[in-house]
Amino acid sequence: MDYKVERLLVNYKTLEEFKKFKEYGIQELSMLDDLEENIIENDSESPFYGIYFGEMLVARMSLYQRGAKFDRYFDPQQEYLELWKLEVLPNFQRKGYGNALVDFAKGFGLPIKTNPRVQSHDFWKAMGFTPVEYDMERDLGENPFLWHPDGIVI
Amino acid sequence: MDYKVERLLVNYKTLEEFKKFKEYGIQELSMLDDLEENIIENDSESPFYGIYFGEMLVARMSLYQRGAKFDRYFDPQQEYLELWKLEVLPNFQRKGYGNALVDFAKGFGLPIKTNPRVQSHDFWKAMGFTPVEYDMERDLGENPFLWHPDGIVI
Repeated sequence: MDYKVERLLVNYKTLEEFKKFKEYGIQELSMLDDLEENIIENDSESPFYGIYFGEMLVARMSLYQRGAKFDRYFDPQQEYLELWKLEVLPNFQRKGYGNALVDFAKGFGLPIKTNPRVQSHDFWKAMGFTPVEYDMERDLGENPFLWHPDGIVI
Repeated sequence: MDYKVERLLVNYKTLEEFKKFKEYGIQELSMLDDLEENIIENDSESPFYGIYFGEMLVARMSLYQRGAKFDRYFDPQQEYLELWKLEVLPNFQRKGYGNALVDFAKGFGLPIKTNPRVQSHDFWKAMGFTPVEYDMERDLGENPFLWHPDGIVI
């Protein structure tokens, strides 16, 4: 599958597309507020990447690069990407859109941490991610899965 | 509604009950491993609190007290409770079990932070919780809601 992954811009069209996704929450509402109050410009870069089918956004994820001092997962502490809100619209699932987004994230060459929904653990394992050993004080309600470019796992 | 909230013990019966809840993940699997490997004793105290209907666990939540130095939500920094995995079994919803658990958590007299599912925001607002102003670096994929015993909100 050869899908084109694009960095999404913050504008009313993108925010309207986001409403189709289940994980629409405070992050999206905050982007809308910032746009309406001119705190950010129309077409600013967002932390979201997505894939369009024609004119329609059908898959997306959010990515954020965290500095080594925030790292509580890799040894030694290092820069890593936090990946969240990976989601493919129902009619487009099982066609490789999710894989394409995760492969794109891996392409930055940094370790990746994600906190997947319980129902998606098999997907993350198939993508080469490993569940951490649970540490309550660190992980609380999370189910972190990690990937490292060198294949190193805790 | 006068429900009795109990601190749950880690034993095979409790862990079997947990399988009925949707949010069964790495935390529960880790407790099972620890029990099987004798890392924790049978009937150890867990971070979970729950309500039984007869013999059956029908509602639960996890609570963890975090020290002030971990606080990134309240001003000044202070001890607070992190609340997660609040869940009521489908046939027992809308009967006040969720309220009873949250009221129990409030009874500790500490501020509370939770990261609710997007679909449950109305419940948390009705319980007196307030959504934070979104800060991407801090909140990433979360939708934090806060409650403070003095009614102070950011």
